[in-house]
Amino acid sequence: MSNSDNSSSRNGISRRQFLKSSALSSLGLGTFMLGGCDTNSQSFQDRGEAKNVIFMVSDGMSAGTFNMGDLIKRRQFGNLSHWVDLYNSDRKFHRGIMDMASLNSPVTGSAAAASSWGCGHRINNQAVNTGPNGEEYKPINQIFKDAGKKTGLVTTTRITHATPAGFSVSIDSRGKEDQIAKKYLQREYDLMLGGGARHFKADSRDDGQDLISKFSDKNYTIARTKQELSEASVDSRLLGLFYDSHLPYTIDHQTIDEHQKNIPNLAEMTDKALQHLENQNGFILQVEGGRVDHGAHTNDAAGMLYDQVAFDDAVKVALDFVDQRDDTLLIITTDHGNANPALNAAGDGYNDSGPFFDRLQDFRHSNNWILSELDENSSVADIRERVEYATQLGIEKEEAQTLRKALNGNLETIYDIKNYPSSVLGSILANYTSVSFTSGGHTSDYVELAALGPGIENLDHFTRNTELFDLMVNAAGVNANMAIA
Amino acid sequence: MSNSDNSSSRNGISRRQFLKSSALSSLGLGTFMLGGCDTNSQSFQDRGEAKNVIFMVSDGMSAGTFNMGDLIKRRQFGNLSHWVDLYNSDRKFHRGIMDMASLNSPVTGSAAAASSWGCGHRINNQAVNTGPNGEEYKPINQIFKDAGKKTGLVTTTRITHATPAGFSVSIDSRGKEDQIAKKYLQREYDLMLGGGARHFKADSRDDGQDLISKFSDKNYTIARTKQELSEASVDSRLLGLFYDSHLPYTIDHQTIDEHQKNIPNLAEMTDKALQHLENQNGFILQVEGGRVDHGAHTNDAAGMLYDQVAFDDAVKVALDFVDQRDDTLLIITTDHGNANPALNAAGDGYNDSGPFFDRLQDFRHSNNWILSELDENSSVADIRERVEYATQLGIEKEEAQTLRKALNGNLETIYDIKNYPSSVLGSILANYTSVSFTSGGHTSDYVELAALGPGIENLDHFTRNTELFDLMVNAAGVNANMAIA
Repeated sequence: MSNSDNSSSRNGISRRQFLKSSALSSLGLGTFMLGGCDTNSQSFQDRGEAKNVIFMVSDGMSAGTFNMGDLIKRRQFGNLSHWVDLYNSDRKFHRGIMDMASLNSPVTGSAAAASSWGCGHRINNQAVNTGPNGEEYKPINQIFKDAGKKTGLVTTTRITHATPAGFSVSIDSRGKEDQIAKKYLQREYDLMLGGGARHFKADSRDDGQDLISKFSDKNYTIARTKQELSEASVDSRLLGLFYDSHLPYTIDHQTIDEHQKNIPNLAEMTDKALQHLENQNGFILQVEGGRVDHGAHTNDAAGMLYDQVAFDDAVKVALDFVDQRDDTLLIITTDHGNANPALNAAGDGYNDSGPFFDRLQDFRHSNNWILSELDENSSVADIRERVEYATQLGIEKEEAQTLRKALNGNLETIYDIKNYPSSVLGSILANYTSVSFTSGGHTSDYVELAALGPGIENLDHFTRNTELFDLMVNAAGVNANMAIA
Repeated sequence: MSNSDNSSSRNGISRRQFLKSSALSSLGLGTFMLGGCDTNSQSFQDRGEAKNVIFMVSDGMSAGTFNMGDLIKRRQFGNLSHWVDLYNSDRKFHRGIMDMASLNSPVTGSAAAASSWGCGHRINNQAVNTGPNGEEYKPINQIFKDAGKKTGLVTTTRITHATPAGFSVSIDSRGKEDQIAKKYLQREYDLMLGGGARHFKADSRDDGQDLISKFSDKNYTIARTKQELSEASVDSRLLGLFYDSHLPYTIDHQTIDEHQKNIPNLAEMTDKALQHLENQNGFILQVEGGRVDHGAHTNDAAGMLYDQVAFDDAVKVALDFVDQRDDTLLIITTDHGNANPALNAAGDGYNDSGPFFDRLQDFRHSNNWILSELDENSSVADIRERVEYATQLGIEKEEAQTLRKALNGNLETIYDIKNYPSSVLGSILANYTSVSFTSGGHTSDYVELAALGPGIENLDHFTRNTELFDLMVNAAGVNANMAIA
């Protein structure tokens, strides 16, 4: 059970054996190695039952994020989260935990994590569907496309970011986002909605190429605003780029009118994507709530949790889609924990932590927004004023002085990875909200996994990340289709 | 779905309705209010099918504790934890998450948590089976005893601590441990194994009474050592008190020969308890790995995780017991998260965190042990020497100076609840192990729940804590038996 096992899932014939013995391995498959799949007979029975696959990722969602997202729904909006409510429902679903370890660490990165689902192999952190010796694995969107299915990516991050890339391309480093955008153009996936316009525009790409025009030349509808998205015909291919980098955090989005007007939220993009992709041959769609992870990285409780709520709204859209049909595999999960946030016991440890937590409801802006106009020249008064505008909290002078020190790069925290300004701001706000974080990085936690639809009966309650690749290709029967094609 | 709902579980007839309509409510039930149970017909079918109930609690186990306990088993001992392995097995089991909120807070305490299982009511933190207006609820061990079943408590804490008390007594405050010990004497539960001798001994009890003699007078075998435990006849009642306060952490226990010789571990106590309690009328046994919680409170990764491993060894004993039988309900869970520990991404965030984590394997002692001989007079050299002896880590001078400041009460941490010495020591060690904590207190996380045996088909995947009371009394049919008795 070591992390270094990158061959195959626990059940069935190993991937290596499969490649060795299968006729498929002798077919010309271009430059790709083929991610094999579980060949036990039970799995084969499912082949083709899932016409569609929807894969939803709340990126970097720790157990505490899942819990607190649900608490916000209950305390502020009066309902359970749709994800938790699913567990109380009469629907047939699988619920398990998943080990997301990468090839080189028990703590994965988003690229290796998405690749484990995207090609069925554990690889080193930072690579995308590329093994440690340069092996390029064929990504699942390409497999589905080759099988005649439509393919889509929806995210709140740059569309070229690790998680969507993990379903779509093979490349040695997730950082090469200009190149990833170009690979999207070559591969001609049907729908891409998110941020990251900077990797498509001539004036911000390193090579000066205008990829947006090139997509347009290939008959993509280009949507740059919410309005253009809603007007886009569902009959053409669609590239929606709604921000230069990542889409704004929900907590900023809901405060800034211009964002509200111009930028769709994750549920709206998911809804449009499902309308767009539905067709007689089926589709695969990845939907990522990508800034949940960023909120955790920046120890930003409100940023993280309102994006978790926005993800949950997108879950509702997907659940409604699959509600009256049995031809769609829906997976809802996360790629790793991040900074394991918690609503901690407040006061003497036995008081009600609720009123502390509920202060988040008054927040208007993310930690990123607060810090975006603070620097080494900011005064203590500047800091206090900006934090109060964003959070309605009057932090102490000493707290502002500490943040100032961090902005100047002069703060030494005891656990030294927590010395950057966002983490310091997060620790200050924890004095008021009782929500805090272990670090600013990913964690090794086993993650929450829900799945509905064809094939789920083959999942163990403790799932290895690569098994989801097997599940998708088996349930959709795409490997077999591809071999024939 | 607010926390203030203390009436009953989500399913079936509400507890209030049940009491109103049931003939049981007109029976004389002493000073106790009767915790009602789910009256839907499906539940009643199970009545009596569970002759025995085993309830296992890893106290204060966050998702990260569960994960890292399993990682230690895999990396150091070469096997999955028994708990995770269960999820890969062909056994029939339930796996869910549970909302442990108390009546007054989304973050519960161990007393309110154990009481939710022990009487089926959410109560305020710190009370034990006692409602906010002084209502005394009958504890589940008494219900089982009244139904003719044997009753047992096994823990690594003081036997009078919150979790065992929550199954056994009703009292307004968990802190009254002398009184709790006296209630145990009155109630005459069959088996109690753990720490806490100080609440039974004449020289340390406030009232000067020698409870140990009084237990002896009631024909209890008294075991004060591992040897005496192993020699105790399984035919008599048994009180085992192996330490004055809590039993030592596993990490200290395995290093100190005298502890090894004299103090049984949790698996050994569990094994003895099962031999002792098995009888034709059945039993209820609570088993608590109580110091997992203490390790989290003191931000002590090694203390916490090796106690989690010891708990897992006890899980194996219980799984072996139920393996060849269908008459035992086994529940394995925790009462709340605590400080949501994490193995964080180390180095630049993409490196292998494993070697950092594996440093815990060289630890010899708990944070408590380290701090037990450090105080405001300790020099930086003293501190570095003692930390190195206990952990094999040479911490920096500056780190030792910071700990010294905390020992002097002069340290102000950014998140102010983290300024006590154990938390500061935890943050220092995180620089070497990459394991850190959000706080030193409990958290609101939904918790891991596994269950095997009669009645589990009635559990939802998202369980309210009070439902476990309903499950136990329904599965064992003890309410009906009690009414007849």
